[in-house]
Parts: sequence; C-alpha cells; structure tokens
Amino acid sequence: MNLKQLAELLELSQTTISRALNGYPEVGERTRRRVLEAAHRHGYKPNSNARKLATGRAGSIGYVLPVGRNVDLDPHFVEFLSGLGEHALSRDVDLSLTPAVLERESEAYRRIASSRSVDGVYLSSLRNDEQRIALVRNLGIPFLAHGRSLAPSEGYAFLDIDNEGAFYNAARLLLQLGHTRLAFINGDTDFAFAVHRLNGVRRALAEHGLPETAVAHHSAAMNEENGFRLAMALFRDAGSETRPTGVLSASMFTTLGIVRCFNQLKLRMPDDVSIITHDDVFPFLKPESFTVPLSTTRSSIRAAGARVCERLVDIISGVETGSVQEVWPVELIVRATTGPAPAARRPARKSPAEAAE
Amino acid sequence: MNLKQLAELLELSQTTISRALNGYPEVGERTRRRVLEAAHRHGYKPNSNARKLATGRAGSIGYVLPVGRNVDLDPHFVEFLSGLGEHALSRDVDLSLTPAVLERESEAYRRIASSRSVDGVYLSSLRNDEQRIALVRNLGIPFLAHGRSLAPSEGYAFLDIDNEGAFYNAARLLLQLGHTRLAFINGDTDFAFAVHRLNGVRRALAEHGLPETAVAHHSAAMNEENGFRLAMALFRDAGSETRPTGVLSASMFTTLGIVRCFNQLKLRMPDDVSIITHDDVFPFLKPESFTVPLSTTRSSIRAAGARVCERLVDIISGVETGSVQEVWPVELIVRATTGPAPAARRPARKSPAEAAE
Repeated sequence: MNLKQLAELLELSQTTISRALNGYPEVGERTRRRVLEAAHRHGYKPNSNARKLATGRAGSIGYVLPVGRNVDLDPHFVEFLSGLGEHALSRDVDLSLTPAVLERESEAYRRIASSRSVDGVYLSSLRNDEQRIALVRNLGIPFLAHGRSLAPSEGYAFLDIDNEGAFYNAARLLLQLGHTRLAFINGDTDFAFAVHRLNGVRRALAEHGLPETAVAHHSAAMNEENGFRLAMALFRDAGSETRPTGVLSASMFTTLGIVRCFNQLKLRMPDDVSIITHDDVFPFLKPESFTVPLSTTRSSIRAAGARVCERLVDIISGVETGSVQEVWPVELIVRATTGPAPAARRPARKSPAEAAE
Repeated sequence: MNLKQLAELLELSQTTISRALNGYPEVGERTRRRVLEAAHRHGYKPNSNARKLATGRAGSIGYVLPVGRNVDLDPHFVEFLSGLGEHALSRDVDLSLTPAVLERESEAYRRIASSRSVDGVYLSSLRNDEQRIALVRNLGIPFLAHGRSLAPSEGYAFLDIDNEGAFYNAARLLLQLGHTRLAFINGDTDFAFAVHRLNGVRRALAEHGLPETAVAHHSAAMNEENGFRLAMALFRDAGSETRPTGVLSASMFTTLGIVRCFNQLKLRMPDDVSIITHDDVFPFLKPESFTVPLSTTRSSIRAAGARVCERLVDIISGVETGSVQEVWPVELIVRATTGPAPAARRPARKSPAEAAE
C-alpha cells in the first residue's frame, strides 16, 4: 500500500498522513493514532522522498565544518559523528556539512538559511565569546548547541557534559591523596569547555585552602605532541621537591605524550606522579590499554552525538520547545595511575593510620 | 554588480554566465573568457544559491556513512574529511552524509539517486567483492572510488595509494636487513587495501626465495587493542629462536598496541625486533612521537581527501571524463625502529664487512 492509497482509505490528505507518521504537533492525537494503526495494519512504509516533499522539509540537519590551515579536526569528531549518524539513520535524516574557514563562518550560516538545504543545525566547540548563537537565532535556523558558552544565561538549548564537575572531582581526589603541587595540561582556553574545567580545578583548590598557583596550568590543542612538550617543560629540569606530583590531562592523546615524557624521564606512575585524564570513550584508544591503566573522567562523546541528533530533530519538528539545557554528569574512574603523593606515602609505610587521614 | 546586471551587460542569459564561471563544457572558450573578464572588471562574485538554481545542481557531494553496532568510524576518516572539506570550500560544495547500515546500503544509494540531493558520490573502504560500483553506475550517479576493489578491470575512476608497493618495499627492507621470520598485523582482509598489502609482502618473500609461511599473518580491525592482543599471541610464549624479528603493522593505532606489548615483554626496538608501520600522517599522533621513532610507509590521507573532492567535482562538471585510475606512490621512511635482524647483527660486531653483504 502506498501513501495515496492509505490517504484514500482514511479520507485524509497525504500531507496529514505524513505529518501524523512523523510526529508533527499540527496533527491531533486521535488522528495520529488512527493513521499509525492503519499504516501498521496495511504494512505501509513511508518513502522518505515523498515524505520530505509532503512536509516541506529538507530531511537534513546541518553542521558548519571548520577547515583551514590551522584547523585540525580531531578524533573526537569522528566518534561524535558515529553516534550522530546512528541516530540520524533511525530518524531518516541526512547530515549536511558546509565547510567554512573561521573568518567566513557567518557567511556559511547565511547561505544555509537562504538555501533551506537543511532543517536545523547543531553548533559545537563553543567559544567563550560565542557569536554563533545570536547569528543562527537571528537567521531563524532551528539549532542545538553541543556545549555551552560562558554566558548560557542568554537561554538557548544545549547539551553539555559537566566539565567543571568532572575536573573538580578529579582535582579533589588528587588533593585527598595528598598531592599539593598539581599540573593541568588543559585544552585551548579559547573554548568554553576548557575554562569550565579550569574553574573546577580552582574550586577544588580553594576548598582545600590552596591558592590558584598550586596548579601549573597550560593550555594548548589536545594532541600527543603538546602533551609531551608541556610535560617535558614541567618535569625535565624540576627536582623531586618542586615538580608536580599530580597531573590532570585534557585528553587521551595529550596523555599519550605525557606518558612518553614520563617514560623518558623514568618517572613511575603512580609512585612518582599521579595522573587523571579525560576519556571520551574512543574505541580505538582505551585507558585500560596503557601499560599503567589510566584513571579517568569519562563521558561518551558517541552517546552525545546520538543525543544531539535526537534533540535537534525534536526541536525541528516542534516536539521539543523552550531552551532545554541538558548537562550530563561525568564519571570518575580510578585505575592504576592515581596513588598517594610521594611525600604523603613515605611516612605511610610506617603508620598507615596517619596516611589514611 | 549582480548576475542579472552582468547578463544584461553581456547580452547573455544568466544560465550561460553561471555555466561559464563554473567551467561547464557546454560554454565555448571564447564566451567563457569574455564572461570571466567582465566579471573580474565589474567585481561580480557569484552567489552560490543563484548559481545552483541556474545550473540545476545540488551543489553537494554525497557519502554513505557506515553506521551500526559493529561499525567504528576510525580516525582515518576525520583526516580524510579535513582534506575533503578544505577543497570543498574552494569549490563551494557541501558534503552530504547519508547514514546506512551495511545491509541497507543499496537502499541509501537509491534514495540519493531519486532525491537528486547530491550531484555525485564518493565510495571508500572498497571491499574485495565490491557491489557498489555496479550499483551507482546503474543508478546513474556520478562517482569516484577512494581505493579500488580486487577487480579494477571493470574500469571505473578511482584514487588509490600503492598499498602493494608500500608493503612490498617495507618487507623487502626487513629481508635486506636479515630478517627471515616476519609478522604482519594487517587490517581486515575483507577490504581490498589489506589484500593488496598482503600481496606486496608475499611478492617480497617470493623474490627472496622464502615461502609464504615466512610471514605470520593476522588480520583485524586497526586499533590499539588488536595490535596488543595479536602481538602478545605472537611474542609472549615464543623463544628468541622462533619468534618473529621483523613486524609490519597496518596503522599507527595498531602499533600503539604492539609497542605496549613489546614494553611489557621487555623487547627492545630495534635490537630484539624491528617494526615498520603504515602512517596516514595524522596530526594528532606522529611516528616521530614514539619513544623509539617509528619507521613508516607514509601517505597523507588528508591529501587524498582533497584530491577526491577535486576529482569528483571535475567528474560532475564534465571536466574529467573516462575512467581515470590514479595511484599514488607511498614513501618508505626509515627512522629508529628498523635494524639488522638479531642473528645477523651478532657476527657483524666482529666483522662489519660480512654483515653488509
């Protein structure tokens, strides 16, 4: 049975049937139920092109893909895309990528708005002074942010993880283990997620009565090279009395470089130095797969991709309204790279009770 | 000056002007030059939407994105996408991703063909018994393959790297260094690139008068875990007289796991074992960044992404015709993980002349 036949049978327009099957709010609940039952009984499966014509939708969600000489898409993106693609399949939508260099980004959004080639967009890698929220809102493009700027008071729909809480918990654990000289090899603080993480670390320090200077903070793109370079700068020439004993790392790739540095300098984990790394749950590089399994803050970026797709489609079809601000908690997983600070451990060998404190 | 004004000035139709500016073959060379000069002189910049309307093109290239429970997009894809996106920007095209599970892939291509939402598609990860070539050809979708099946005699346009030559050269170097017990931790041999690589290794063995059994061959998805697991199976219980001394690895991620295994078993590179890895030139994980810098076969997958976009747009606009089969040579870069086989090296200490052979 095709759409036309089903429409004749139910004495409804083809448009109404398409809208009913796709959960549009314009169709009343009684009609929707009637359509769903008939479609099921007669084995009708909607043809996506017909549906797109009938509903006036492009059937596509959009993303402005950052490109340019100094832009590296990183492996996070591929995992996010896996989750988004999987959900997009179940909702029968495509993903349209419009490449743009940073300076001409707004032009790309304008073109998307005027061409109506997509029904909505998601934004990611939100900057501290994010300009895109106001832009897409003014252009009337339905949108969802993955992450949030430093001023989410503007009130827009987003999905984010609790970056501040994650790094607060990680720093607190290191402090509880007796570490008082911390290092944080952070991502680029032009982006809000990295600022949120730093805020979390500082909050833990303050609660412990320690000044902000108790953490050596470095900010750079998250990759192996920067991890190695920054760890070398921190550890190579420092004596065991002055160097950090607890390290926070922004990503698995950063940590690959930090671990290489520790191997070269013959620093043992966790005897000489503890480390906690943020893990996006990459299937191709797992924290259990390090010679010393990594303690991590963990949140699946693949699950976030699926959820962004789900909510964006709901926003487009009017099922989700208002500015829903969804924040996922982040797990703290203790494996083998965290232990008592060297200074705290030595007396502990004599008196375990004291060290437990 | 807008398109209409330019058309009036030159007494040409807007369609002709759009086609001339976009290099369509329907427009004669003299007219094209006239249009280009006038556009330049009067500062006319084409509006991409107007152009798309005028040319009847979607302004988008397509890719069917594999999703599903057992599919991991891997970091190769993100680098490929970076290159493709960068070139797509310069040609003013978008990339449309249509998610599909393997079993329903052909349906996705049919939908792409009937919706005309893209002007052409690229195919990647070609399988040994590739079904998609015939499918997209029958559907009349312009296409370019990234990679080739085992039967490229069908004659279709592709861009591939010389996987066979790369692994032939790598295996030959190990043989020249005196290694006679090789291991190859390959990618999934359901895909043609992995079969080509195995053929290269076997060709080198045959030229050296060695049987196919001189290489322990294992095939699996390219990630850290499989590298570790397969290297452990090969090396853990083998004595120094029987274990492989030369290893070929399919990817940087595989090698992360192999190196972890070597560290655990206290096997030194290259003293106990040599290794050559294929490197796609990831900015986030570099061969120079291993504790012992990796010898590699090297080919930039980002450059391949840019070239695939360039050629696909040329195929769509009729600038490229026929079945151009482009194969890129692969470099062999010797760094620190390759050295003489242990058996060959020991006598060399007494008589360098002998070992040079």
